Amino acid sequence: MRYTRFMRSYSIIGTGAIGGYYGGRLAEAGRTVSFLARSDYEYLLKNGLTVDSCAGDFSLPVIDVHNRASDLPERDVVVISLKTTANELLRELLSPIVREGTILLVLQNGLGMEGEIASWFPRAEVIGGMCFICCQKRNPGRISHLDYGSLTLAALDGDSTRARAILEELKTDFSDAKIPVTVSPSLGEARWRKLLWNIPYNGCSVILDCDTKVLMDTAASRRLVRSLMEEVVLGAAACGYRFEAGAVDRMLEFTDRMTPYEPSMKLDWDFGRPMEIAYMYRNPVEAARRSGTELPHISMLMEELLFLEERRHLRKPR
Amino acid sequence: MRYTRFMRSYSIIGTGAIGGYYGGRLAEAGRTVSFLARSDYEYLLKNGLTVDSCAGDFSLPVIDVHNRASDLPERDVVVISLKTTANELLRELLSPIVREGTILLVLQNGLGMEGEIASWFPRAEVIGGMCFICCQKRNPGRISHLDYGSLTLAALDGDSTRARAILEELKTDFSDAKIPVTVSPSLGEARWRKLLWNIPYNGCSVILDCDTKVLMDTAASRRLVRSLMEEVVLGAAACGYRFEAGAVDRMLEFTDRMTPYEPSMKLDWDFGRPMEIAYMYRNPVEAARRSGTELPHISMLMEELLFLEERRHLRKPR
Repeated sequence: MRYTRFMRSYSIIGTGAIGGYYGGRLAEAGRTVSFLARSDYEYLLKNGLTVDSCAGDFSLPVIDVHNRASDLPERDVVVISLKTTANELLRELLSPIVREGTILLVLQNGLGMEGEIASWFPRAEVIGGMCFICCQKRNPGRISHLDYGSLTLAALDGDSTRARAILEELKTDFSDAKIPVTVSPSLGEARWRKLLWNIPYNGCSVILDCDTKVLMDTAASRRLVRSLMEEVVLGAAACGYRFEAGAVDRMLEFTDRMTPYEPSMKLDWDFGRPMEIAYMYRNPVEAARRSGTELPHISMLMEELLFLEERRHLRKPR
Repeated sequence: MRYTRFMRSYSIIGTGAIGGYYGGRLAEAGRTVSFLARSDYEYLLKNGLTVDSCAGDFSLPVIDVHNRASDLPERDVVVISLKTTANELLRELLSPIVREGTILLVLQNGLGMEGEIASWFPRAEVIGGMCFICCQKRNPGRISHLDYGSLTLAALDGDSTRARAILEELKTDFSDAKIPVTVSPSLGEARWRKLLWNIPYNGCSVILDCDTKVLMDTAASRRLVRSLMEEVVLGAAACGYRFEAGAVDRMLEFTDRMTPYEPSMKLDWDFGRPMEIAYMYRNPVEAARRSGTELPHISMLMEELLFLEERRHLRKPR
């Protein structure tokens, strides 16, 4: 029990694939974890949570699950694992459970969530978490973890002593729960680095209706993915984050080695759920634009996704 | 019979919507017209050609139709009304019927066809024809003309006295056949002006799976169409053709007033035929690039179309 010096308590806001996996791992490792669930609440209350994981299966037959945020017990860390498409409800949802010094850990994809959340709760400590994981919720209470699983943590207020201490505590808790953790000194850089994968693969898999393997194995889409990645690098640079030479090539090679995968936006689209366009596309495009850099391929992909979203009724659901 | 001073004879290479309509109009007006047809040959031989036209229906119960180019009689004007996807076969197809002084009238969409064809037949006179028309081949021998119908003619060799004389002769013949004709002094400008419509609407209707009305009435696709048009204007300028201010706005307004329409590339895609990507997208992108101008939205649309073409087997036909 080398890593158990820090034992924070956790509330998991959103028990989908991400919240179920990371929250489940923390609970399995003996941390105090409460879960907020909506549609799966009844099921989770009766049956608990099962995780089929490439890093080792586990079951939690009983979990502390609630269906109203105000019913959640007081916890040190509030893990935000809802999709960003729910962020317009987030302020109201979090209000009853965020206190002075509450740690808000944002396990979402996109750009700009942490700053927005911090503006609502100035006395909380906001940490970004980049999940490098392939996982899906197959059924209520049943998470399928297919590949990877590491977490990169970075504080919105990266320079404060308090933030650095919190990052180390979280790293200890997650590491103890079999989750490899990297701490990054720059939230902005870590977010843009995650976008290097998310921007091309999420949007292209929706627009071209295919998985990552087809995107990589078809000459035209491979060129398109590369162009999109090169624009992410441009956008990051415009915002002050310079990636090393070869970052694009290495991300392409990384995806070549991946199990064929349908990114989360593809699943969202296919199953009739809203897509995370605002945080994953609009915010990066606008951040780069404020620094004087246009990202035309990314903008175009965004427009195509917005079209689908607005004209969803034209398509047959899967 | 005011306009009958010139009566050229015509061969129509490809009796689809365009060849059937324009060739049919010329024949209906008393010109000598021979048709080349492949799949519809037997039907046309037995039943002739019927045109349901917003400018007046007509039928030609008997037409001079052939299924081998070498069987076509000698004619003054060879009208190329095949899709550009067949252009790799065009040189061989035309060889037996192009003689010294033959007029080659290219009724195709895209950029660069005339120069290529002229390089094969240096002793022919090559004229480009831009068809502003909504028409479809509903069934063999049955053309449906829905809207518009005018023709812009421009010579590849725009400065020669001979080319100018030919343009006037063709104008007379087509005008006499109820086809409004404009003669343009610049083939390049006329081709780019046609691309102002073709590039956005053809590709977007395929990628977003909808007609022109949906593209215009959805905010995201309307912005996308505008961005693509602005890039066509940039590409034209790079190649030396400056459009007047307001050209994009007027093209948008023009399309707003159009009957909802599925562009030819949309029909090609839906019915499993190859798409005209090379001449409509690759050639303009490369022409602009040779002049130092990148067209990122158009390039991206091209990559998406190339992806669909290469992965056609992933889709169910309509």
